[in-house]
Amino acid sequence: MTVIVIGASGDLAKKKTYPALFTLYLKGFLPKGIKIFGYARSDRTDEWLRERIKPYLEKDEPGSGEELEEFLKLCVYRRGQYGSTETMGKLTEECSKFEKEMMSSIKSNRLFYFAIPPSVYADVAGAIRKAGVATDGWTRMIIEKPFGHDLESAEVLSKRLASLFTEDYIFRIDHYLGKEMVQNMLVLRFGNVFFEPLWNNKYIDCVYISFKEPFGTEGRGGYFDSSGIIRDVMQNHLLQVPPRVDDDGKYTVKLLNSIQPIKLQDVVVGQYVGSKDGKKPGYKDDETLKNKDSITPTFCSMILRICNGRWDGVPFIMRAGKALNQRKAEIRVQFRKVPGATAMFNSYIPRNELVIRLQPNESVFMRTNVKAPGLMTHPTQNELDLTYKNRYGNVDNPGAYSRLLLEVMRGNQGPFVRKDELRRAWEIFTPLLKELEEKKVKPVPYEYGGRGPKEADQLAIKAGYDERTLNLRLKAGPRDNRKVL
Amino acid sequence: MTVIVIGASGDLAKKKTYPALFTLYLKGFLPKGIKIFGYARSDRTDEWLRERIKPYLEKDEPGSGEELEEFLKLCVYRRGQYGSTETMGKLTEECSKFEKEMMSSIKSNRLFYFAIPPSVYADVAGAIRKAGVATDGWTRMIIEKPFGHDLESAEVLSKRLASLFTEDYIFRIDHYLGKEMVQNMLVLRFGNVFFEPLWNNKYIDCVYISFKEPFGTEGRGGYFDSSGIIRDVMQNHLLQVPPRVDDDGKYTVKLLNSIQPIKLQDVVVGQYVGSKDGKKPGYKDDETLKNKDSITPTFCSMILRICNGRWDGVPFIMRAGKALNQRKAEIRVQFRKVPGATAMFNSYIPRNELVIRLQPNESVFMRTNVKAPGLMTHPTQNELDLTYKNRYGNVDNPGAYSRLLLEVMRGNQGPFVRKDELRRAWEIFTPLLKELEEKKVKPVPYEYGGRGPKEADQLAIKAGYDERTLNLRLKAGPRDNRKVL
Amino acid sequence: MTVIVIGASGDLAKKKTYPALFTLYLKGFLPKGIKIFGYARSDRTDEWLRERIKPYLEKDEPGSGEELEEFLKLCVYRRGQYGSTETMGKLTEECSKFEKEMMSSIKSNRLFYFAIPPSVYADVAGAIRKAGVATDGWTRMIIEKPFGHDLESAEVLSKRLASLFTEDYIFRIDHYLGKEMVQNMLVLRFGNVFFEPLWNNKYIDCVYISFKEPFGTEGRGGYFDSSGIIRDVMQNHLLQVPPRVDDDGKYTVKLLNSIQPIKLQDVVVGQYVGSKDGKKPGYKDDETLKNKDSITPTFCSMILRICNGRWDGVPFIMRAGKALNQRKAEIRVQFRKVPGATAMFNSYIPRNELVIRLQPNESVFMRTNVKAPGLMTHPTQNELDLTYKNRYGNVDNPGAYSRLLLEVMRGNQGPFVRKDELRRAWEIFTPLLKELEEKKVKPVPYEYGGRGPKEADQLAIKAGYDERTLNLRLKAGPRDNRKVL
Amino acid sequence: MTVIVIGASGDLAKKKTYPALFTLYLKGFLPKGIKIFGYARSDRTDEWLRERIKPYLEKDEPGSGEELEEFLKLCVYRRGQYGSTETMGKLTEECSKFEKEMMSSIKSNRLFYFAIPPSVYADVAGAIRKAGVATDGWTRMIIEKPFGHDLESAEVLSKRLASLFTEDYIFRIDHYLGKEMVQNMLVLRFGNVFFEPLWNNKYIDCVYISFKEPFGTEGRGGYFDSSGIIRDVMQNHLLQVPPRVDDDGKYTVKLLNSIQPIKLQDVVVGQYVGSKDGKKPGYKDDETLKNKDSITPTFCSMILRICNGRWDGVPFIMRAGKALNQRKAEIRVQFRKVPGATAMFNSYIPRNELVIRLQPNESVFMRTNVKAPGLMTHPTQNELDLTYKNRYGNVDNPGAYSRLLLEVMRGNQGPFVRKDELRRAWEIFTPLLKELEEKKVKPVPYEYGGRGPKEADQLAIKAGYDERTLNLRLKAGPRDNRKVL
Repeated sequence: MTVIVIGASGDLAKKKTYPALFTLYLKGFLPKGIKIFGYARSDRTDEWLRERIKPYLEKDEPGSGEELEEFLKLCVYRRGQYGSTETMGKLTEECSKFEKEMMSSIKSNRLFYFAIPPSVYADVAGAIRKAGVATDGWTRMIIEKPFGHDLESAEVLSKRLASLFTEDYIFRIDHYLGKEMVQNMLVLRFGNVFFEPLWNNKYIDCVYISFKEPFGTEGRGGYFDSSGIIRDVMQNHLLQVPPRVDDDGKYTVKLLNSIQPIKLQDVVVGQYVGSKDGKKPGYKDDETLKNKDSITPTFCSMILRICNGRWDGVPFIMRAGKALNQRKAEIRVQFRKVPGATAMFNSYIPRNELVIRLQPNESVFMRTNVKAPGLMTHPTQNELDLTYKNRYGNVDNPGAYSRLLLEVMRGNQGPFVRKDELRRAWEIFTPLLKELEEKKVKPVPYEYGGRGPKEADQLAIKAGYDERTLNLRLKAGPRDNRKVL
Repeated sequence: MTVIVIGASGDLAKKKTYPALFTLYLKGFLPKGIKIFGYARSDRTDEWLRERIKPYLEKDEPGSGEELEEFLKLCVYRRGQYGSTETMGKLTEECSKFEKEMMSSIKSNRLFYFAIPPSVYADVAGAIRKAGVATDGWTRMIIEKPFGHDLESAEVLSKRLASLFTEDYIFRIDHYLGKEMVQNMLVLRFGNVFFEPLWNNKYIDCVYISFKEPFGTEGRGGYFDSSGIIRDVMQNHLLQVPPRVDDDGKYTVKLLNSIQPIKLQDVVVGQYVGSKDGKKPGYKDDETLKNKDSITPTFCSMILRICNGRWDGVPFIMRAGKALNQRKAEIRVQFRKVPGATAMFNSYIPRNELVIRLQPNESVFMRTNVKAPGLMTHPTQNELDLTYKNRYGNVDNPGAYSRLLLEVMRGNQGPFVRKDELRRAWEIFTPLLKELEEKKVKPVPYEYGGRGPKEADQLAIKAGYDERTLNLRLKAGPRDNRKVL
Repeated sequence: MTVIVIGASGDLAKKKTYPALFTLYLKGFLPKGIKIFGYARSDRTDEWLRERIKPYLEKDEPGSGEELEEFLKLCVYRRGQYGSTETMGKLTEECSKFEKEMMSSIKSNRLFYFAIPPSVYADVAGAIRKAGVATDGWTRMIIEKPFGHDLESAEVLSKRLASLFTEDYIFRIDHYLGKEMVQNMLVLRFGNVFFEPLWNNKYIDCVYISFKEPFGTEGRGGYFDSSGIIRDVMQNHLLQVPPRVDDDGKYTVKLLNSIQPIKLQDVVVGQYVGSKDGKKPGYKDDETLKNKDSITPTFCSMILRICNGRWDGVPFIMRAGKALNQRKAEIRVQFRKVPGATAMFNSYIPRNELVIRLQPNESVFMRTNVKAPGLMTHPTQNELDLTYKNRYGNVDNPGAYSRLLLEVMRGNQGPFVRKDELRRAWEIFTPLLKELEEKKVKPVPYEYGGRGPKEADQLAIKAGYDERTLNLRLKAGPRDNRKVL
Repeated sequence: MTVIVIGASGDLAKKKTYPALFTLYLKGFLPKGIKIFGYARSDRTDEWLRERIKPYLEKDEPGSGEELEEFLKLCVYRRGQYGSTETMGKLTEECSKFEKEMMSSIKSNRLFYFAIPPSVYADVAGAIRKAGVATDGWTRMIIEKPFGHDLESAEVLSKRLASLFTEDYIFRIDHYLGKEMVQNMLVLRFGNVFFEPLWNNKYIDCVYISFKEPFGTEGRGGYFDSSGIIRDVMQNHLLQVPPRVDDDGKYTVKLLNSIQPIKLQDVVVGQYVGSKDGKKPGYKDDETLKNKDSITPTFCSMILRICNGRWDGVPFIMRAGKALNQRKAEIRVQFRKVPGATAMFNSYIPRNELVIRLQPNESVFMRTNVKAPGLMTHPTQNELDLTYKNRYGNVDNPGAYSRLLLEVMRGNQGPFVRKDELRRAWEIFTPLLKELEEKKVKPVPYEYGGRGPKEADQLAIKAGYDERTLNLRLKAGPRDNRKVL
């Protein structure tokens, strides 16, 4: 096998692509006869490339001395133009030669990693089509988000690629789909007997998907301002979650087709302002931001409505924001109230919630009502818990990129974004994005370091998230700080 | 209120009745104006009674100095014959007088605790009927197991009591029903939304109820031999569990009516022999045992079949034994295999199990399959856990007797054994007991300190308990000794 | 066996008791050696009794000539006082003599049918206690509604009976529970696999129980005015339906305990007025009615709320009325809207309804959506149908009284009203009855021959009955008049 | 719009294509400006074509005189070679001209109907690619089965087409998917609330799909012998049924991927022999059959195993045969036994079955247990029924071809066979077909006009089809002949 890292001299290559390959190498997941070709326009040497990537490999996998050196030997650098059939031809000729030497009898496979801007995807793909396709093995291309700025631009890109390659050549990577917990959901749902009967609008009241960052744009505001939180996080990443909540990650377009385009009335947008103590700047204080009247949201909460038999009536509340009070990405499945329980126990019974925490401190727990110890028979809420750290300690939990690279090598397209999914994702978001722009909707200001606009909580409650359960939860404080009795 | 402890000079009174009353006193659950009359045939003084019970109160509630003294003052002793209307009349006259003094306006209530052998229940009840019933408050009688030796003897006793009192006067106590975890099951089942859809033969494969003691008869063999483990533990206590697994503990006779009488083919009986190292004696080595050819079982495993809509096809496997490898009472609800999971993950998927541990170390946990951390997507089993000790630390978990006494005072007959339940319980067991005796079925010998007869495991597997899951569990070893990774 | 019809000279005896016995006789359900003693205060002869009942037997079972004569020979008449131990003793002595002659070896059983006013129940029961109990067979007493006028009066009666007999002697008859379709519900629910998963608040939106009569009091207003439709039909008969909808008719008190006392705000009462064309009189036109300001309801609609796990959130809408547009008693189980269907078919989808028609034209049908024939794929509503008349033609469907008498002979207390059920039934209705009286709530006038007050439809819709489905149904017209396409 | 019937002079065109178009024309489903070009190699005139098709149009739509003439005017004939770019170009030039005249502003669409042998599909498609694609509207091609003889040959055809057109151009027609009842299943399943909870292995025991013809090859044995019943009916048509039983007919490949390749041990093959009375010939008596040692099956029964979460453990029993006792195509969904019912009613309770009859006499009915009328409470089986003929009388139920042509015009690919489905269908059957050939498996002989090999019933019973229910059903006789009581 050969890996060709297109754009080897860029940031993504050194920070993500090579470290992920190195992790796979260390764990023995790379095949024996392999060579990793860096490819870019600059005139560089193998040595230059190795020096460049080495610090990042060491950072990710400290103490891997000898193996690191061996891995670096596999990495070489070749110069070429992105759209040039000629240089691409020269490179793949070398690949072929290497493959023949190494694996006389085995099929040779080629993995192209596009660590380049989307604007040159089509050029590179065109060159590969003409001069790069493996003749007796597979050819696969990994491309990175963003896949367009709206439905129209995404379709243009898709069509250009489609005229060159069918979908089984193309792997659109979204590192969210490589997260340990996203993949764990598959096992939880389908490896246990007790989720299936609960997994529908008969038992689930709402699903809450949230993504919080504790920092603002911090000097990247200029870049961020043209996309905003909706494109940057929600259309890109969070929308991948509902299909995985729904099913096994195959044919996710079926679920996306049931999601109605977001309506403005189901949305709250926010933009952070400086913290009251003056220590933290507001979004508009970002020096790289030129448009000081920007209405780009740095926070958004919205309700997805899925109109199929399973989810009709269950709002999916999605929430993403920068400059909030903590770093957290989690999925909360809130169940309906327990019928008859109030009468039986003569008291309010908090809702059950299954919480899947993606980061930090990966965990799964179910908020469960148990008998409070003592002479009375009244319920109190506790957590049936499976926190990874507690159970598995500092297990070696490889990064999302490694995991996804491995899936590409296996030819599993499940955790990648297919063309029809991508189109539908834009169909869901584009009308909203257009309306926000056209109506110049002003984002609600919220303080750096807080919980975000209170309008977002109100939106969730209006959609059906149980207020009392929310209040109980907020009152109890962040789970990780809570003392176990 | 007055409490009358009939048989105040006996063992049960000092070990259970008075300590339970004292716990309620300390926690403030006894009403203000209360007097506790000890009543027995011997000629004793108040002081004698106080000295007798004091050590047991101190043991149960250490460090309760001053309150202990105050409680003892409430305890007096009165002599009387069990069937005598005269002495009973004198006693209750004193009660009435006390009640009038203490609580001019409040209704006076009388709680009789029968800490006496069943042979004199009817005599005492007759005397109470004639001379002891409160005229402006309730009268309640707590009676202790055993309630007969078989269907016939139990019916004789029931009918005699029924001719004196209707059922709302009588509370048949089974301290098993006062266990924290038995009561917790109510909250778990009905205070959470996720058990109801699973709680039937569609999802549950079998239910396993086990009771293990790490010691033999140890000098009580003479007494034990006439009852055996089936009467001593299974008909008496374990049969109370299935109705609580099934429903809320009201109308439990409905479930019992659906249980078919046990068939011999569904039973394995055992009798322990000395340990191989010679350190532990066999059952027949018990000096108090006279019949050295005894075939009395000290171990029994049996399958209950419930033929209603919910449980048809789900065996309830009950297992009780003495001289086994550990002390443990627990309920294991084993779920069916996950449909489709083997194909999806291409491997054996262990069964889910909900385990409710009654003793020791009270806990609830759900054996759950999760993704093994790392690059592969294969399931591994873990436990969604709620161990009381971990969560609630050394909370003050009052004994079963206190809890049940409190329920009597509240007039809640739920956790007591009603007459029709008792009859049905005997109908279920009596044919088996008769057949074992008539056919002189020999118990399988098993070693003191082991797991019991292997035939019992085979019976469980034949009934449907998943062998591979069992083996995985045994291989993992006892849960409490397992190291968390 | 001997049957003793107490009050043999009255109306009930001739219209119901004897015809029901005759039906059982014809079908071979009466035991061979039987004698039926009529017992009343008047001085009459056997012949008089036979002449009196004969027309009613002939009417119910036309063309039964010879068998009729044989049956009449079994019927004799004895004079006696209701509370007299002496005359009762004489009668039962004769019974014993007859039993000895007829069935030397068989146990003799006695069935007392109380065809007398409730005011003398206790007297008769007292005489039976002292002089009428069978010594080597069972003794059973059938008593007729009404069982009291409110909670208090019902309790007085219950307590008097309870001091004489335990519950297994007493069978409170409600002929509603003998209806073919009420008993069919048992088979439908528990003899088919497809109702169980649907039978709960996840799938059922509401249950609608209605009882309509096309005639007014018609000269019985004087009698009716002291009870009203609530006591006459709802507390008496309709409340027996929800427990049979819920479960198998055993332990029905469990369900009744979950029903909250009716609140005035959940009630609409009505009183009929003359029809517009002047042909039909109003309630107050009834000459036997003395109180011309009567506010006694002749129509009532109310919502029962059941707070257990199965029915929490499902209103049971009960509706009964006189002088309405048709004779009909039916149970409508309306299901929830089909999730996702509106989006899938892009149109309104009517609710599914399971309809159990008790009378007239007994039937079960399920309103089902099917594809309208033709080239479009849009749903239309049809009926999966099981109408008895269509299927079983003029089968011999015996009356409710025969059925219930048979159950008494079998000793099956399921379709009778137990003491605790009766108490609870009054607890549910008494507060409402009191409030209606105290607040002098005026009934809504409605026209003789119409649908009843429109406020009743509004109440049902407010409670959750789907308005569009209702309108579709009303628009389609009465089912029996509809033409099959 | 223009329709181009390629192979207009053939049998399929006159028998199916033109009549289906005519039906759509009559019902107003064809757009106004339309022209239907017949295209074939022979030198014919418009008039010749009209004369040829006219009798078939009249037969299908009798009494349509004037409209028939108008329709015929729309039909013209053009001569051309199948692979010729030139003649195809000439034809489509004429199309364009017509389109421009007719619909100046509307997009022009082209529907090619391939009424030709599969061997020339690729040639025709190639000519269309080069000279026939509409430039401002859609171009769609309908192709007919068979799509290959096994996996390999099917893949060759698929790849050739794929190199010319993406999947949205191609509609593989299977007229089974156009049947009224197949489409009705969609409405039944998703337009009613009561199927969803039942539609899984918790409630369904097995699914039985059967296709019976009352005639043999009757002179077509020569053609039939090379395919056999498995290719002719099962792989072709019946395999389309399970995905429609499973879901809404979109993404059916997901279900097919869960079906394991058929194993020989799960198969019974048969071949019919002459009837005993000598009136009906055996398969080998067919004169057109050359190979008199043929082992080609004319009957086959097999078990499909679906290993996903919904169907794991539910065998899909498929059965197809020629020369059987009746014409019938139906789907039987047999439910599991009712838990607890045997104990409750103390008798065997037949299984519920939902039967969807595709032909003849289209109907849906649910075999349901009801109380037998009379005094006993025992269940009897009846049918909740929806027979189209009874309800909708002689409604105009258009043929499958019309329906499917309409779907093509709508661009709905749901009821057509996608490339990936086709591949998977062959993957499921090819190993079995190979094994039958290689092992020369002899078919079981069965009599013309009988029920087929009894081994097939045994296979079904072994797989789980309830024998007693089957016997009850057979005993009751064919439903359509049964008298309603």
